[in-house]
Amino acid sequence: MPDDAPFDPIAEARRQWNSHWGRVATPAMGAVTSIMRVEQILTARLNALLKPWELTFPRYEALMLLYYSRRGSLPLGKMGDRLQIHPTSVTNTIDGLQNLGYVERIQHEQDRRKRLASILPAGREAAERATEVLNRERFATTPLREQDLETIYDVLQALRRSADA
Amino acid sequence: MPDDAPFDPIAEARRQWNSHWGRVATPAMGAVTSIMRVEQILTARLNALLKPWELTFPRYEALMLLYYSRRGSLPLGKMGDRLQIHPTSVTNTIDGLQNLGYVERIQHEQDRRKRLASILPAGREAAERATEVLNRERFATTPLREQDLETIYDVLQALRRSADA
Repeated sequence: MPDDAPFDPIAEARRQWNSHWGRVATPAMGAVTSIMRVEQILTARLNALLKPWELTFPRYEALMLLYYSRRGSLPLGKMGDRLQIHPTSVTNTIDGLQNLGYVERIQHEQDRRKRLASILPAGREAAERATEVLNRERFATTPLREQDLETIYDVLQALRRSADA
Repeated sequence: MPDDAPFDPIAEARRQWNSHWGRVATPAMGAVTSIMRVEQILTARLNALLKPWELTFPRYEALMLLYYSRRGSLPLGKMGDRLQIHPTSVTNTIDGLQNLGYVERIQHEQDRRKRLASILPAGREAAERATEVLNRERFATTPLREQDLETIYDVLQALRRSADA
């Protein structure tokens, strides 16, 4: 490795894998480790962009789900399904949005045992302002190009769908 | 959408983005949301595979870094740099590995103020056994194919490297 090349821990891990374990699992290890690292990088960048509204990316995603729902409200269970997160995480996320005055909890009209989260006007305002910033910053994906981004979406789709079953 | 197609929340979000915000940021939103979801799916699958050793994927990554280090030990700061994680997270991860008897903390020979994490024989054993399982399961990446995995590694590399600067 030339001295002026930045040290790349995952490229180094790939070399270790190839020499110690054969080449069979190296592409999987390299892809998984890259996804984990990129998720960390994106989360840090996105949370910084969302800080003016005290949103984190999970809160933003939950807020947008309500923003685009037909009635502005959804059962918590359905939100968990859509975001593929655990019921406890949904509860925590909605608690956070509620404390910020962005959503309220309401009862389901037909089934009073069911709890819905419902977006409030301040939540709609935050959703729109935050989305303008994220769109302008291309969701913090610099330096990836449009074709790279579409490739990521396309390639990961099969894995996402396999987890829905 | 035909009734027999599974509902895909990210495909639906892409449609919403295209119609409400124009097409400029849709590829970025789709890619970022896919990465976030896939990270959740992979973390759940990997943690299940690693459960026999009480490892999580972050603990496994830290353990492998020590496993492949020349002396079997590394300063905690260097581990944080390599894994691109916060010093507090390194401390928590090493605490976890120490409680399992996989690593110990030692003092740096030259600089007694510096703390190193050092892998123990039980840690080497766990690293090897866990790696055999992860390799056999291709790091839980089913149903992605080798070419998909290499594409992910290649495409994400530019973003990873931009964050090192």
